[in-house]
Amino acid sequence: MLTQEIRTSLSEIGDLNRLKTELNEMPAIDVGDYIRGLPEERRAIAFRLLNKTQATDVFEYLPHEVREELVGSLHNVQMCHIIESMRPDDRAELFDELPAGIVKRLVQQLSPEERQATATILGYDEGTAGRVMTTEYVRLRQGLTVGEALSKMRLADRDKETVYYAYVTDNNRKLKQVVSLRQLLFSIPDARIEDIASDRVIKARTEMLQEEVAQLMKRYDLLALPVVDREDRLVGIITVDDVVDILEQEATEDIQRLAGVADGGESSLSSPLSKIKSRLPWLLAIMGLYIGASSAIAPFQTTIAAVPVLAVVMPLFSNTGGTVGIQSLTVTIRSLSVGEATPQDTLKILRKELIAGLGTALALGLAMVIISLIWTTPEERWVSVMAGLVMATNSLVAVTLGTLLPIGFVRLKIDPALISGPLVTTMLDTIGFILFLTMVTISLNVLHIIP
Amino acid sequence: MLTQEIRTSLSEIGDLNRLKTELNEMPAIDVGDYIRGLPEERRAIAFRLLNKTQATDVFEYLPHEVREELVGSLHNVQMCHIIESMRPDDRAELFDELPAGIVKRLVQQLSPEERQATATILGYDEGTAGRVMTTEYVRLRQGLTVGEALSKMRLADRDKETVYYAYVTDNNRKLKQVVSLRQLLFSIPDARIEDIASDRVIKARTEMLQEEVAQLMKRYDLLALPVVDREDRLVGIITVDDVVDILEQEATEDIQRLAGVADGGESSLSSPLSKIKSRLPWLLAIMGLYIGASSAIAPFQTTIAAVPVLAVVMPLFSNTGGTVGIQSLTVTIRSLSVGEATPQDTLKILRKELIAGLGTALALGLAMVIISLIWTTPEERWVSVMAGLVMATNSLVAVTLGTLLPIGFVRLKIDPALISGPLVTTMLDTIGFILFLTMVTISLNVLHIIP
Repeated sequence: MLTQEIRTSLSEIGDLNRLKTELNEMPAIDVGDYIRGLPEERRAIAFRLLNKTQATDVFEYLPHEVREELVGSLHNVQMCHIIESMRPDDRAELFDELPAGIVKRLVQQLSPEERQATATILGYDEGTAGRVMTTEYVRLRQGLTVGEALSKMRLADRDKETVYYAYVTDNNRKLKQVVSLRQLLFSIPDARIEDIASDRVIKARTEMLQEEVAQLMKRYDLLALPVVDREDRLVGIITVDDVVDILEQEATEDIQRLAGVADGGESSLSSPLSKIKSRLPWLLAIMGLYIGASSAIAPFQTTIAAVPVLAVVMPLFSNTGGTVGIQSLTVTIRSLSVGEATPQDTLKILRKELIAGLGTALALGLAMVIISLIWTTPEERWVSVMAGLVMATNSLVAVTLGTLLPIGFVRLKIDPALISGPLVTTMLDTIGFILFLTMVTISLNVLHIIP
Repeated sequence: MLTQEIRTSLSEIGDLNRLKTELNEMPAIDVGDYIRGLPEERRAIAFRLLNKTQATDVFEYLPHEVREELVGSLHNVQMCHIIESMRPDDRAELFDELPAGIVKRLVQQLSPEERQATATILGYDEGTAGRVMTTEYVRLRQGLTVGEALSKMRLADRDKETVYYAYVTDNNRKLKQVVSLRQLLFSIPDARIEDIASDRVIKARTEMLQEEVAQLMKRYDLLALPVVDREDRLVGIITVDDVVDILEQEATEDIQRLAGVADGGESSLSSPLSKIKSRLPWLLAIMGLYIGASSAIAPFQTTIAAVPVLAVVMPLFSNTGGTVGIQSLTVTIRSLSVGEATPQDTLKILRKELIAGLGTALALGLAMVIISLIWTTPEERWVSVMAGLVMATNSLVAVTLGTLLPIGFVRLKIDPALISGPLVTTMLDTIGFILFLTMVTISLNVLHIIP
């Protein structure tokens, strides 16, 4: 983190040399935070103090808006150098963000090799292994010795993370084996690569979804995963830092979608317009769907006018029943998403949820009877009993819906995170209201309480 | 993954030798899944086929119940070997799970060195860096040459992940520098460690919370992080595979707590009893709190009896307002939790949320007026207008609560994930109901509609 002293020194544009040394020695992400925090007109000044390597690293950590601003204000030569030295996957991401005109100009100035690497990555669908992989990795041909392999790794590019594994391919670039730097290091230099490398290569196809990639790497504790095309040719690798980002991004999506935030990638600092875009459609959809629940109440207005305490009790079981449903829904979606449970476990999961649900239903039903006694008059005690019965039934329905909906979605190969919580509460309210009001109305007609 | 063929071969206890070869060559986690899937009486048979290293690895991937079962049924010698070769952090975790009597017996049979390592880790609080670290790392004393360092790393333990970095300490074990295997490998053997190692060591104190550790390692893309005690002495390291697990665990906690699942670590396959334990208390608490919202309605029963359409409209704005609140709450909690935003951004966040909230409020208010026309008779049109006003107000309150509650919690150093969604919907319902019914009652008295 940067000290106040340094901030001041920049604000006076005084001791620029000292600032330059400091900025070039700090971790790139901290420099990124520092530059982001500067007033707009000073960002380019600070950025120009960075040496080539640091500039490239820092650039990768800057947010979208600041990057675009710098692309506009830096000298063409410096910009081209940065773009040329970026990792191909990061470059592809940047090109996705920038206006098409600027991208075209930048692409023209890339070396043919780097242009090819970027085009390859941009050719894959978003959210797949092909899109998140990097094309910077160490490939060894079969037949090399350990000594030759080590020399090759020594010459490999500056990116430290990609160098702890090397991949052995045949003459057609087909992936055959994997070998770790450690294995190479601790073998005799004359040994042949094939003899020390491992044949059991865990790999991903380019079209594999990024969340599956992340789960695979998590499962086998891999620092890097090779990516192959349909012909089993090595085309890139995915590194563990990407896995960390993917897992966090997927968790954010799960959380937000459950809460009815459609986009799944909103941040507190997103623009108000993008917030409205990702939230309002769901809200209006929920209101639209809820017309069903409210319409279920409408025909019973005579009943409500006769027993207005119903309006006191109904929100209570609606709120509680909704919570029961969201609990089951959340636990099920999360378990499926992290791979703790699979749709094959459906019966096992449902059994556990239903047993737990039965206990919960009894407790909540009883609580409902007791609590609603607060508002029912002695003549209305039967309403409390019915509210308890509906509370219990509603809880069981809630548990069943919350468990089976996401499992059903997975079986139909639809992302279960698309089922938002509000959708489930709306369904539960509709069922609960109809059940309760029908029971009460029938009782009224049988008991002839209606005035 | 295991083929059907192998399953059959075991079920016939036929070609045990082939099964043995296969099980010892497969990735440990796959063997773990295989053994877990076997009928209970066959698990120990399959486990005994594993060689020592594989047995230790597989044991670490088995679930709690199966481990306990094996501890009971395996020969003491085999069990002791496994316990002795486990990584100290995994062993500490196992001891946490097992009955105290068994732990005591196992600890007595550990070598003094391993016993010390386990005791050290168990001495730290759960959820801190000290508890998740491993004590297996490579430590180099200042003054060594690169060649000497490499020999030392060559002798280091089988655990591949811990060997890509080595830590340089002074005579008092104080952490001074860090050096990567790659740096060592590509330097002259006679060079002195101090000259090639880096002085900028990112490290954690033993008491640092595991989620902070994970965020730190994520921020700097580290494969391992050294852990030091209060005197800055190196006591362990945390590896990137732990980070992946911690981040996933924290995300699960965030998701579940938001949904009102208290424990935060429930899985679909948890026992019904533990499900009830982690869900029912919240449900009862929510019901208890909701007495406030329902009691707010109770005094207005005369109003409801006079205008029963209120009971049709109220659930609609309660459900929608609740969703608005949970959207803001979720986005804010998640942004704070992944470090996209900090409490210092309060005003910025609130401004963005309020602008978005204003747009949303207007749209929802208007939608409410239009939708509620379905149920209001021509004489009740004014109820629709009021419902729209309350919907809009409630949305703004929802956004404000959803944003400020978690930020306030963070400022007070309380985990914001403790604010569950149902808590917020309960507060919103109470406010909305009081507002709406008061407005309607006043209008009634002014307009003299009450019969």
